[in-house]
Amino acid sequence: MTTGKITLLGAGPGDLDLLTLKAVKALAAADVLLLDDLVNPEIVTFAPQARVVRVGKRGGCRSTPQAFIERLMRRYALRGAHVVRVKGGEALLFGRAGEELKTLRDAAIPVEIVNGISSGFAAAASLGVSLTHRDHCQGVTFVTAHLQDHGEPDWPRLAATGTTLAIYMGMTRIERIAAGLLAALPASTPAAAVQWAGTPAERRWTGTLGALAQGVAQTGLGSPAVILVGAAIGEASAGADARDVDADSAARRAA
Amino acid sequence: MTTGKITLLGAGPGDLDLLTLKAVKALAAADVLLLDDLVNPEIVTFAPQARVVRVGKRGGCRSTPQAFIERLMRRYALRGAHVVRVKGGEALLFGRAGEELKTLRDAAIPVEIVNGISSGFAAAASLGVSLTHRDHCQGVTFVTAHLQDHGEPDWPRLAATGTTLAIYMGMTRIERIAAGLLAALPASTPAAAVQWAGTPAERRWTGTLGALAQGVAQTGLGSPAVILVGAAIGEASAGADARDVDADSAARRAA
Repeated sequence: MTTGKITLLGAGPGDLDLLTLKAVKALAAADVLLLDDLVNPEIVTFAPQARVVRVGKRGGCRSTPQAFIERLMRRYALRGAHVVRVKGGEALLFGRAGEELKTLRDAAIPVEIVNGISSGFAAAASLGVSLTHRDHCQGVTFVTAHLQDHGEPDWPRLAATGTTLAIYMGMTRIERIAAGLLAALPASTPAAAVQWAGTPAERRWTGTLGALAQGVAQTGLGSPAVILVGAAIGEASAGADARDVDADSAARRAA
Repeated sequence: MTTGKITLLGAGPGDLDLLTLKAVKALAAADVLLLDDLVNPEIVTFAPQARVVRVGKRGGCRSTPQAFIERLMRRYALRGAHVVRVKGGEALLFGRAGEELKTLRDAAIPVEIVNGISSGFAAAASLGVSLTHRDHCQGVTFVTAHLQDHGEPDWPRLAATGTTLAIYMGMTRIERIAAGLLAALPASTPAAAVQWAGTPAERRWTGTLGALAQGVAQTGLGSPAVILVGAAIGEASAGADARDVDADSAARRAA
């Protein structure tokens, strides 16, 4: 039997219209789907022939261990299957793709990578802002608040770069994140949080860094969400309510 | 006559299979396409009914001024047209979308944003690496080497974040970039440059930060390219040639 192959596929933030044509083709050719639990479950309609295995491990509880996922990928591929490993967002950002690629390389299993839209970009699209703006910053930093050693990123140092910050997995520690950033940035720095960006369940808060932690708490936003901080994000609030958690008005402004 | 609308559309890095389904639908509904010159010209096949206007402004020469592009967008929309403004890569990263959004907001023209795949992600996919890796870094910074005031980003400060760096528009000043980064990072830090990522013309160089400027010069890589620097990028060279500019072997490794 010949070895199969693995496609690491970024499924985007949830709206299936944000799948790429390349993703649609890979799904149509899949024998097995390994689905993360932040992926829109309707994605299986693009692969009606495939066996579907759910391997979500959200938030660390009731998780499918990473090593088990990697064993599954390897086992199916060595049996000759075309396995599509479906990740939320972009496959190559915060998804442990690096570890999976190493496992597959060590086992000499062919791998194809299909990029997807990360939720930070979808959040900016919903807010109607660019993540970079030549008047305000030279770039954007995507960072996870959830480190391997349970430590924290050096928020003042990240803030000192002057880049827009797109913070993933930060909602449960938003007070400490805001405090860390306030050590280097003025309280008036524009900030936003977007939960379920690019899905019908999307909810957003926009305001300032000084008001971020309390604002998000008061409006009940939770995970999964992206926190955006930086002057470029302030372009969103030109003419908009500073506490926009009304999805309809948000859609009108973005549309 | 009713006002039309504008779609700001990220066309991805060149491979039309990296268009999203949402992009394909927007193109099919377009009356006018305003095309950046880094966009694959074949994209017009998705909008056979549309009038095509090329508004590239690569490298500052023979350019279409930004103000003129914005006037065009506004004029067509106010005549009732559905204008699709097609940008290379992701619409909300380094594409002056911020300025265009403000112009359109000021003119009360409805705008929709369609995200796309940025070339930094496509470059990582070709190299077979994740831009983040929990063993090595907490994030990735996308930064342009081309600042509005012709100054330079603070390279040591960016390096000090410990994030992977994805540097856009840096090929003409790669020596200064490398020197700036070497003030904060060891010469052995993994580095890569990918020209025309995600297109048939793709060329790549992989090695170390210490060898980056000379290696890129020797292999003749030029713009447009993305420079990637950081320990996560080193995962690419496990088992691969350190000076991979052979597209075939690259494809084999990625495929």
